[in-house]
Amino acid sequence: MKRTLAPLFLAAAVLGPLRADEGMWLYNNVPKERIRSKYGFEVTDPWLEHLRRSSVRFNSGGSGSFVSEDGLVLSNHHVGADAIQKLSSEGRNLLRDGFHAKRTSEELKCVDLELNVLESIEDVTARVNSAVAPGLAPEASAAARRRVMSEIEKESLDRTGFRSDVVTLYQGGAYHLYRFKKYTDVRLVFAPEQQAAFFGGDPDNFEFPRFNLDVCFFRVYEDGKPARVSHHLAWSKQGAAEGELTFVSGHPGRTSRALTVAELEFLRDDQFPHTLGLLKRREVLLTSWGARSAENGRRAKDELLGIQNSRKARDGGHAGLHDPALMQAKREAEAQFRKRLKADPALASADAAFDRIASAQAAMAPISRRYRLLESGHGFNSELFGIARRLLRSSEERGKPSGERLREYSDSARESFEQALFSAQPIHSDLEILTLGDSLTFLCEQLGTSDPLVQAVLAGRSPRDRAADLVKGTRLADVAERRRLHAGGASAVGGSQDAMIRLAGIVDAEARALRKQMEALDETKKLAHSEIAAARFRLEGASQYPDATFTLRLSYGVVKGYESQGVTVPAQTRMAGMFERSSAMEGRVPFDLPPRWLKRRSSMRLQTPFNFVSTHDIIGGNSGSPMVNRAGEFVGIIFDGNIDSLVLDFGYDEVKARALSVHSSAILEALRSVYGAKELVAELGTGRRRG
Amino acid sequence: MKRTLAPLFLAAAVLGPLRADEGMWLYNNVPKERIRSKYGFEVTDPWLEHLRRSSVRFNSGGSGSFVSEDGLVLSNHHVGADAIQKLSSEGRNLLRDGFHAKRTSEELKCVDLELNVLESIEDVTARVNSAVAPGLAPEASAAARRRVMSEIEKESLDRTGFRSDVVTLYQGGAYHLYRFKKYTDVRLVFAPEQQAAFFGGDPDNFEFPRFNLDVCFFRVYEDGKPARVSHHLAWSKQGAAEGELTFVSGHPGRTSRALTVAELEFLRDDQFPHTLGLLKRREVLLTSWGARSAENGRRAKDELLGIQNSRKARDGGHAGLHDPALMQAKREAEAQFRKRLKADPALASADAAFDRIASAQAAMAPISRRYRLLESGHGFNSELFGIARRLLRSSEERGKPSGERLREYSDSARESFEQALFSAQPIHSDLEILTLGDSLTFLCEQLGTSDPLVQAVLAGRSPRDRAADLVKGTRLADVAERRRLHAGGASAVGGSQDAMIRLAGIVDAEARALRKQMEALDETKKLAHSEIAAARFRLEGASQYPDATFTLRLSYGVVKGYESQGVTVPAQTRMAGMFERSSAMEGRVPFDLPPRWLKRRSSMRLQTPFNFVSTHDIIGGNSGSPMVNRAGEFVGIIFDGNIDSLVLDFGYDEVKARALSVHSSAILEALRSVYGAKELVAELGTGRRRG
Repeated sequence: MKRTLAPLFLAAAVLGPLRADEGMWLYNNVPKERIRSKYGFEVTDPWLEHLRRSSVRFNSGGSGSFVSEDGLVLSNHHVGADAIQKLSSEGRNLLRDGFHAKRTSEELKCVDLELNVLESIEDVTARVNSAVAPGLAPEASAAARRRVMSEIEKESLDRTGFRSDVVTLYQGGAYHLYRFKKYTDVRLVFAPEQQAAFFGGDPDNFEFPRFNLDVCFFRVYEDGKPARVSHHLAWSKQGAAEGELTFVSGHPGRTSRALTVAELEFLRDDQFPHTLGLLKRREVLLTSWGARSAENGRRAKDELLGIQNSRKARDGGHAGLHDPALMQAKREAEAQFRKRLKADPALASADAAFDRIASAQAAMAPISRRYRLLESGHGFNSELFGIARRLLRSSEERGKPSGERLREYSDSARESFEQALFSAQPIHSDLEILTLGDSLTFLCEQLGTSDPLVQAVLAGRSPRDRAADLVKGTRLADVAERRRLHAGGASAVGGSQDAMIRLAGIVDAEARALRKQMEALDETKKLAHSEIAAARFRLEGASQYPDATFTLRLSYGVVKGYESQGVTVPAQTRMAGMFERSSAMEGRVPFDLPPRWLKRRSSMRLQTPFNFVSTHDIIGGNSGSPMVNRAGEFVGIIFDGNIDSLVLDFGYDEVKARALSVHSSAILEALRSVYGAKELVAELGTGRRRG
Repeated sequence: MKRTLAPLFLAAAVLGPLRADEGMWLYNNVPKERIRSKYGFEVTDPWLEHLRRSSVRFNSGGSGSFVSEDGLVLSNHHVGADAIQKLSSEGRNLLRDGFHAKRTSEELKCVDLELNVLESIEDVTARVNSAVAPGLAPEASAAARRRVMSEIEKESLDRTGFRSDVVTLYQGGAYHLYRFKKYTDVRLVFAPEQQAAFFGGDPDNFEFPRFNLDVCFFRVYEDGKPARVSHHLAWSKQGAAEGELTFVSGHPGRTSRALTVAELEFLRDDQFPHTLGLLKRREVLLTSWGARSAENGRRAKDELLGIQNSRKARDGGHAGLHDPALMQAKREAEAQFRKRLKADPALASADAAFDRIASAQAAMAPISRRYRLLESGHGFNSELFGIARRLLRSSEERGKPSGERLREYSDSARESFEQALFSAQPIHSDLEILTLGDSLTFLCEQLGTSDPLVQAVLAGRSPRDRAADLVKGTRLADVAERRRLHAGGASAVGGSQDAMIRLAGIVDAEARALRKQMEALDETKKLAHSEIAAARFRLEGASQYPDATFTLRLSYGVVKGYESQGVTVPAQTRMAGMFERSSAMEGRVPFDLPPRWLKRRSSMRLQTPFNFVSTHDIIGGNSGSPMVNRAGEFVGIIFDGNIDSLVLDFGYDEVKARALSVHSSAILEALRSVYGAKELVAELGTGRRRG
């Protein structure tokens, strides 16, 4: 699961009546009564506290859990991949070959991994709200709110030493103070080969049945020694069983369930088709070019994998938006809610806010094409163009007070801005010409060749020839040249004859104007959404769950298969299936198996459950979340969603959407039979490290 | 080279001044003076007759030549592939494994291959024109013309026994009677493995450098014995050399060089972007689905290869249309020509015809989207839908006189119509649901989900669910059911509850109306083009060459490299390069080599020239054309064009467009060293079969 859906719109509170197992619930607002009445299970506070303190947040974006009192942390391989990659070097490819520390002294300290454990939640809504005088203009009110939130965070940090974040929930309906214990000495303990973790690669991504050992183990250290943690999850003997009630504790990143119908229709009819068309165009371009030589293939690979992942994710989300049931439910819920707003004169303005959103959306439609092409860069798919624009804008923006600049040029963003600008990442001329030439062709198609700006951009050349001219006419591939221009500021950049900088100059006036228009419309929508959210909170309080915000949430559900196009998909796979799938695919990449797996096959218990699906309400960020049974024991780990789960960004679906997990038994079996990791197996069994 | 660019628009006469080696010249109108003045070479009538009588037309679409007096014919492997495929069976895969008949008794008789040799050309323009009374309405005039052409053909056939075709040249400026000797007993002599013929597959298609042994040999028979032919090409000792003047004799299929600027702009800005977007969408769909299982891959493969070929060809053509030099030349030539028309009051109407074309084109633009989706079926990418529509329309059309029906339902088309309708080709439900679901989504995107027709098509379901319902709700996969409905006529089809037939019914009224509008506009354009062509012929006579019409043509040019994005591409490759490319690509499909090549490598003269490029003006249909030197000796065989040659449909380009050939020496070397085909080598050397 590598969802990279960029934030499209502001998320707001959740609309509509809850469906069966719906909800990413706050730990201080778990629907105990619903769970009791549906499943006959009593969620107690100690039970919740144990699960909360066993849950781990990966600040790089993901979830995990403690599985021994000696600080052993389990997460997904794809959550840990960035840290694993950073521990690799030319002679040591840990992603490809895997890693196994037999003793703690062999565990590898990660470069920059930070893990958090949620210590406490405190409702600070009253204090935040009381600090914002009523009747303030929106900007002043936002500033006052930011000020009091910083105060609360600082006080808490000073008093407790815990990382302290005030989080905005229900789009401003509530403010909670989250305190975290921070671990910054995190060491790699075990990782399988990426072949085993991501067996089936892109073809099987977001699909089920699956056969992925998408796990890895880290250990948190304090004072140079394995940390002793107060809570960890015991390992279930059986693991998850079909039909069993289970819970997922993790950090869903972001959902957009409160988009209005007008916004969803825009996504369905405009944004998604545009983005998908572009992704497919780029996928074909890179695939075709990549097939021409081994070196081309290598250069294109990373971007191609990213594109394929995005394309698959968005195709799934788009299909969900085309589901009349989802849209009808949204429509009815919106109508009902607006009826309640209309009934209360004090809330009439929130009702009108829906119309303001629709108007802003409608105003975005006619400029969104030019905006995407010129400002979002869809017409200039080139690293060098991006660098040229950054240099040009930075030279202009630096003269303004930080608060008046485009946000990516503010003082606080300087560090990451310069890191990107001066990155030594290699830029390949041939690939640049290819992608820029194709995107200039796209620009012609979208705006028409006779458009004056297009004419200025092409300068009398064909799109491909112009791309070649531009790439040959720029020195920005050279980091030193970028530094020189950046240091020279407006005079150096403004006077530059560099072809790419001049191109950025041709586009910039209109691009900036479009951005200004779009941001104003987006601000209108944000304000309207806050107003709706406030009204909703007034009517419903916390009877609902807020949109995901990368805060700890609890989901509940059952292990359960589903129907897909008339075919029943069983709830679980077994380890034997991985070998069967590999041989059905003739062992071709990405269905090839690691040598270790092939060698140990005969000693494996092949009937062990491997991956399974369940009805839990999850989203990107939940990767690595532990799943526990009623007894609070670890029974599986979330690692993906099926293709129909890609609609969960917009609304829960219990019919076809499923969360995908690695079964706890498969983890043990692989550690034992394939990797001979006896000491890890023992630690998971006893909950403590031997010796 | 597998260009399948479907006829988009009527071709007309050629516009503008000739460029260097431009021209697909009629054999009875070779520009001898131009060739003499540029190259100092005298083209004589006997020289021409020898080349003409050595040239062979493959009626399946392609070219070839006699290379021995015993009827040995050389063409491309990809031209012969259809015939080779038809000789294959489950246990005998001749495409994959190749074929080699050591003696004539082993030569395999082709199922349905017909070869033609041009015997004579006679100008019958005067007779055709005199049969058409001036002042007739367009339809009556067309009918009178068809009548006299049939008469001439029949008289000639009765008198000479030769196949006799009256061909329309210069869009009606001239009518020539072509007489052909027909060979229908054609036997396969030799074919290499497809791996060698199409080494590099899709990635290298339309590219250079190349390493393809794209050849195969047939032999024509008469009375059960090898035919003794009057002319054949002697094999050159050296083959083509860089810078050498050579000639290509073959059958270019179709060019569209007389499209007006308004038409070219429509292609560039509307038709090509639409088609390319659709092709890329389908390519990603099938690639992604095909990667999910070996069986999926098998089912998707053929269509996928076709899509990739079309996508690559159109991407190249589209890039050509974006070349400002081409468009500027077209614009200037059109302006100059119209100036000449305006100067002559008798030709003023031809000048106005340009405006009529532009108006018709402009009128097409707003309906072309719905036309493509509903009538061309871009919104219903499904075999079953196609069958349903054919059944529905046939049941309605059969009641009308043949001349008033939609043309594919006329009496004369019945045989091929029924062959397609009752084809036992397997239809895979899963693939049908996939492609139909995706195209219904495309329909939604293009027309908007709220479009009333879209609503009727979807029937309240999501595109994917609706596709599944439709495929499950039809029995048309069963050929017997199609026969039953077809036999039952209007009452059986009209009363059918079959889901796919009912869907066809929902779409049909609007689809037919759109087709009527489009055909009327197309007719307007055709008439305007004839008028322009007539005026041009009056002004220029036969000083130009006519657009390609699958009649025999002569092109001249030189073996010459080119520049591509600043890189100099040398004119020729050597056989060693094939091994180098394969190993650089790690021997992966389609860069794998046949076992025979790997085994015989050490005994090959690896410095032998393999493939080369030249400036000849060619187009699809020229595949298999012989290239000869001044002495009329065989020096190479055309098999492809480079990516920049894909613009040759619209206009000749001498800078980057190149024809690709297999060098004569490579053919001999492979026959000798790899295949041990001594008797073929001897026959090519002596021009006669031993014993």
